[in-house]
Amino acid sequence: MYVRVLLQFEAQGIEVIKSEELGASLYITPAQIRRDLSHFGRFGRQNRGYDVRGLATELRHILGLDRVWEAVLVGVGRLGRAIAVYPGFTSEGIRIVAAFDADPDIAGLPVGNLTVQPLSDLQSTVRARGVRIGIVAVPAVHAQGIIDELVQAGIGAILNYAPTAARVPPDVKLRSIDPVLSLQSMTYYLRP
Amino acid sequence: MYVRVLLQFEAQGIEVIKSEELGASLYITPAQIRRDLSHFGRFGRQNRGYDVRGLATELRHILGLDRVWEAVLVGVGRLGRAIAVYPGFTSEGIRIVAAFDADPDIAGLPVGNLTVQPLSDLQSTVRARGVRIGIVAVPAVHAQGIIDELVQAGIGAILNYAPTAARVPPDVKLRSIDPVLSLQSMTYYLRP
Repeated sequence: MYVRVLLQFEAQGIEVIKSEELGASLYITPAQIRRDLSHFGRFGRQNRGYDVRGLATELRHILGLDRVWEAVLVGVGRLGRAIAVYPGFTSEGIRIVAAFDADPDIAGLPVGNLTVQPLSDLQSTVRARGVRIGIVAVPAVHAQGIIDELVQAGIGAILNYAPTAARVPPDVKLRSIDPVLSLQSMTYYLRP
Repeated sequence: MYVRVLLQFEAQGIEVIKSEELGASLYITPAQIRRDLSHFGRFGRQNRGYDVRGLATELRHILGLDRVWEAVLVGVGRLGRAIAVYPGFTSEGIRIVAAFDADPDIAGLPVGNLTVQPLSDLQSTVRARGVRIGIVAVPAVHAQGIIDELVQAGIGAILNYAPTAARVPPDVKLRSIDPVLSLQSMTYYLRP
């Protein structure tokens, strides 16, 4: 979120920003901003504020956002197709380089500028290209099996769209996109 | 997640479950399960385990999942259309009852079994129906304005698909669906 907001300021031609202004954009306190950034080094100067472009560049580097990350997509149903052509990934340096599906009717079809590969190619493709990111868009019942295969192939970060609890070893990161669960986590607070 | 897993057990005909088995399905410890459930009352019996159906019913009631929740959708571009017809919401009792778009070319068009309404109808429709949930699928730059309008109309829970930092008053809940940010939150750990 810091990087996003800083890039917005940069696009507006703003060169220096105080932690108060940065905080207002992120809806957090200036003290929190100073605490957060202190984990990574010394960025601002007392009374002067942060150099917008310099801070954005440093944070992008620290977070690994200043390079292209290759990803594989598993599951090319309706959701998988939407993910494969989502321009938001490409513009942020996330490039889906291979897509897989267990359905022999789907393997072989084009998706975006890729050809869907059979699931049996998954591990060899991930290993050969050294891909570290996997995106999972298979039905819930198949998700854990696919996640296990990705981990076995050397994937280190998984974005899981399947509505299920999933497990990865401690050295692998997992984030889930689950709109129903997100909504259901709020209804408790809406009861009359 | 508890409710999801319990309903899966129920569908398999399992009537009683020990915290060890429930924990294994959720990838958390039995001690954590007992701690979590103790916040809401006494459910299990020592040495006997939890009644699957009874616990699912109670938790669904506590979490407000045993009723239909009406929601409004704002933004009917490509993403908004996919959200409007997503069967996962309906099957979990979340019913989108109105959809709005600022674009006069989109207002008036059908989406699912609704007709897209102009944005100027938003507040009156939300108030008239007493809707409490808003789903935001507008471009990032418009998201905060729409969220403010929803809050003003009495919305208490917002699911935000716009890739932006957004603010709500303390009595309103907000969850964001942000696949790019989710991926970017992991790349830090992938650096060589």
